[in-house]
Amino acid sequence: MSRIVVALGGNMLSDASNKKETFEDQLNRIEYSAKVLVDMIIKGHEVVVTHGNGPQVGSLLLRMQSDIPGATKLPLYILGALTQGQIGVLLQHALINEITKKGVSQGEENGIKKKKYVYVVPTSVIVDVNDPGFENPTKPVGPSYTEEEFAKLDKGDYQYTNTPKGYRRVVASPRPINTLENEMISDILENGNLVIAVGGGGSPTVRTEDGGYQLVDAVIDKDLASAMLAKKVNADMLVILTDVDGVYADFGTENQRLISKMGMEEAKKLLKDPAWGKGNMGPKVNACVEFMDKGKAIITSPNKLMDALEGNAGTTF
Amino acid sequence: MSRIVVALGGNMLSDASNKKETFEDQLNRIEYSAKVLVDMIIKGHEVVVTHGNGPQVGSLLLRMQSDIPGATKLPLYILGALTQGQIGVLLQHALINEITKKGVSQGEENGIKKKKYVYVVPTSVIVDVNDPGFENPTKPVGPSYTEEEFAKLDKGDYQYTNTPKGYRRVVASPRPINTLENEMISDILENGNLVIAVGGGGSPTVRTEDGGYQLVDAVIDKDLASAMLAKKVNADMLVILTDVDGVYADFGTENQRLISKMGMEEAKKLLKDPAWGKGNMGPKVNACVEFMDKGKAIITSPNKLMDALEGNAGTTF
Repeated sequence: MSRIVVALGGNMLSDASNKKETFEDQLNRIEYSAKVLVDMIIKGHEVVVTHGNGPQVGSLLLRMQSDIPGATKLPLYILGALTQGQIGVLLQHALINEITKKGVSQGEENGIKKKKYVYVVPTSVIVDVNDPGFENPTKPVGPSYTEEEFAKLDKGDYQYTNTPKGYRRVVASPRPINTLENEMISDILENGNLVIAVGGGGSPTVRTEDGGYQLVDAVIDKDLASAMLAKKVNADMLVILTDVDGVYADFGTENQRLISKMGMEEAKKLLKDPAWGKGNMGPKVNACVEFMDKGKAIITSPNKLMDALEGNAGTTF
Repeated sequence: MSRIVVALGGNMLSDASNKKETFEDQLNRIEYSAKVLVDMIIKGHEVVVTHGNGPQVGSLLLRMQSDIPGATKLPLYILGALTQGQIGVLLQHALINEITKKGVSQGEENGIKKKKYVYVVPTSVIVDVNDPGFENPTKPVGPSYTEEEFAKLDKGDYQYTNTPKGYRRVVASPRPINTLENEMISDILENGNLVIAVGGGGSPTVRTEDGGYQLVDAVIDKDLASAMLAKKVNADMLVILTDVDGVYADFGTENQRLISKMGMEEAKKLLKDPAWGKGNMGPKVNACVEFMDKGKAIITSPNKLMDALEGNAGTTF
């Protein structure tokens, strides 16, 4: 049985392009994701689930904009923990229901099926307080403002950038180093149960000078956090699920062709190409590079997943 | 070492009377709560932490009122999971920092201090789909509306009641039966670590006809959920921390006197008194009654806690 960390892309939880998306629309995507994951379990894989939180945290940031008497304004550094609860519990229930429906268990013990539990672990991910990301924040978060809105905005101590969509707040995207929950996550896996962890990349946490911990405004890349977790739990494989079925050369042109196998050198070369590093695929390739000295990494879409696991689809690193 | 489930009252996390309370004000209360809990651990008790979420979930409900393009409206049944992430992770960090500061460990193993970890368990609490609470919802949630506002309100399928503060939505407050996370909570305790569970009473969950689970709009009383958890983890004691140092007879009058010891019969008689059952203390006494056949239960305030544990303050059941 191979242990696989599966990172669910934002599109598996929400359709970011649909401004009218309802909570029920998101639930449908979560239920579909649960089906995909349970199909992997039925095929004999041990699955560790991680997920994005972009649209969900963006939604909460939007709602935190207004001054409402009696409604506390929550800072970014804790909003990730809210979405770990939100997405985690919804995924947990969808997974339990799918496991029940398909009759999946841990096998039999004295003729009785041993139940497979699903647990959510809100994860604090440690980053270096001296990470260069904090000096030069680049990750846009929350709403975009027109020139006029931006002029009137109470900017606080935040940093902003002018994006093609308008002005947006930018925060650091520091490199994930460790989690505060490694032991618990490993224990859950050793007991044969299913775990949902490092949701949205985890709650960004730095060490303080007195040996304690402090949450910080930042967004950790969920694919990098998944690669880090995959190493911590000694996973055999990292699978990044997204809306494209693999990494393409000349993507979006007539000549586009799937790269089915990518070596370390080729991947690193690709990441240096400026057109690449900034795209959607860059961070995913980067996460695969992080993990590929420990095991196999695959980028693919949910409907090509089963083929990709057998080497017949997707991009394998 | 006695195992004690400690339920943190709303006032230990937030000052509900302060409409201008900031997130930092709430953080200070959480840090104070962590101090109180770690002092108990230093005294040699094994602590299981539970907490309320009233102000936090009320705050989110208020923010979900407005229609904001691109910001999903989340239903009540998932908001509890968000606050379990929010309060849980803040408490976890405050506890870890206090444990580090005070040098608390699990003891030494081969001369090396064994780290005491703190984990948050977003808990789904099972309630009966036929609970009478669903037929006749009584728990007010979210904002209150004037006559005029109420007339214009899109009421959906919700039920409302006219309270002294105005019209408010009411939901069921069903009786907690079990959790989906018992095994994990017990494992964390067996490993000598600290757990935060059934926050806000847990995410209300019913069984479906096909053997699965479904989240439902409801609010489970956090003290009753704590009593239920105390039974599941075989706790020796349930401690309910609130802003009054114990249960008083003729409270608020010149004749008020602390009831230091309350028996089952007396407590049940008290709960039948209509003036009582509706007050703040009623649900707490009710939770103590639930647990008192399994062990000791105490209602007290944080600053009387140490005396109460020695039988010199608070109300003991």
